[in-house]
Amino acid sequence: MPHPTTAPELQILAFDVFGTVVDWHGSIQREIAARWPHLDGDAFARAWRAGYVPAMQRVRSGELGWTRIDDLHRLILESLLPQFGLTGLSEAERQHLNRVWHRLDPWPDVVAGLQRLKTRFTLCTLSNGNLGLLTALSKHGQLPWDCLLSAEVFRAYKPDPTVYLGVADVFNVTPQQTALVAAHHDDLAAARACGMHTAYIERPLEWGVRHIKDVSAQAGNDFHAKNFLDLADQLNC
Amino acid sequence: MPHPTTAPELQILAFDVFGTVVDWHGSIQREIAARWPHLDGDAFARAWRAGYVPAMQRVRSGELGWTRIDDLHRLILESLLPQFGLTGLSEAERQHLNRVWHRLDPWPDVVAGLQRLKTRFTLCTLSNGNLGLLTALSKHGQLPWDCLLSAEVFRAYKPDPTVYLGVADVFNVTPQQTALVAAHHDDLAAARACGMHTAYIERPLEWGVRHIKDVSAQAGNDFHAKNFLDLADQLNC
Repeated sequence: MPHPTTAPELQILAFDVFGTVVDWHGSIQREIAARWPHLDGDAFARAWRAGYVPAMQRVRSGELGWTRIDDLHRLILESLLPQFGLTGLSEAERQHLNRVWHRLDPWPDVVAGLQRLKTRFTLCTLSNGNLGLLTALSKHGQLPWDCLLSAEVFRAYKPDPTVYLGVADVFNVTPQQTALVAAHHDDLAAARACGMHTAYIERPLEWGVRHIKDVSAQAGNDFHAKNFLDLADQLNC
Repeated sequence: MPHPTTAPELQILAFDVFGTVVDWHGSIQREIAARWPHLDGDAFARAWRAGYVPAMQRVRSGELGWTRIDDLHRLILESLLPQFGLTGLSEAERQHLNRVWHRLDPWPDVVAGLQRLKTRFTLCTLSNGNLGLLTALSKHGQLPWDCLLSAEVFRAYKPDPTVYLGVADVFNVTPQQTALVAAHHDDLAAARACGMHTAYIERPLEWGVRHIKDVSAQAGNDFHAKNFLDLADQLNC
């Protein structure tokens, strides 16, 4: 435990979801491969996710009004279908495919890790995903959250400070009594700037086996864990 | 099952919390009696709860800005302490007493009933209680919600239609695919006016054994159940 003196203050663990809790790449790749074996599911998954930050930026810049991630995913999907030769899909098929984001599988350590962490901390999501999406994937993966917090609650997307500071506000604690758990250093840096503690989780396969992610430790994080079970060990849960 | 043709459409069950899920009267009465045996815990609990609607009305009328229930409970508590001879309480003791609303016990049928209902429906709260309060009492009672929805998410209190319509909006379904479960006919009537299905739950002891509540059926509700287990039976869960 790198910071034993600060750990006792911690009450709330807020979790990034896409990539940190659920394996979006593997889940989408598997669904594409099962339905269209001739397609490159790896490329499809990566292209869909790659459209996400630019789409959110259109909301954050004011070009688009407030838009849920479900609708942003659909916008991106519409641009991908021609690239992958899937223009023949019906509206119902498009809706079903778009909801693959509601069926993402958690990483194998997640449920057991959350159950251990829940004995000592209050666990919430802190995701740009909308509440309906977070509810569906949590039900799908049987994720034992105490509360779902989303950009939708705060009407702002990470990395807007409103979202990070919202955790302390909702639970009536100080930012120092909260921590963000995420597999992305930029998310953690934004949380740290708001006074939150930070825990980095290694997810080397987030972008698939063809694109192994660098999961080296970076300065500034309070915890660096291989997975949620390792984090539970470090937090004495 | 009174309306078998409508039940298959149902996807989301939204639950009122105070009185429907948790026994606020018994929980507060027990805590008061344990700490101050000479006080009338029954009267204390009823007076605290009776202050709730007028306090919310001050927010709804615009007299007070947006205020969380935790803070409204504290305002009411401050007016009760002199009446009950408890003016000597320290700030820490007042904060602790106010958080009794975070420690309310569920009715005995609730956890088992929710577990059965959860196998077929998405379960969320729909309470004027703030998210921090709902999280704390759900953790306290081990309530297996799929999602917590609160007036705090919609920035409006029930019976504002925004709150009821918010359920369908969050889950991207029609109001007819949602139902409100509550022990209060006025809450259910407001939900019905928004197109929701309704399920009345008998909680004759909501106001204590000295003030048994009339739990007669009223016209208009789709379901009338003794408790959550009875509701699970009626919904074939």
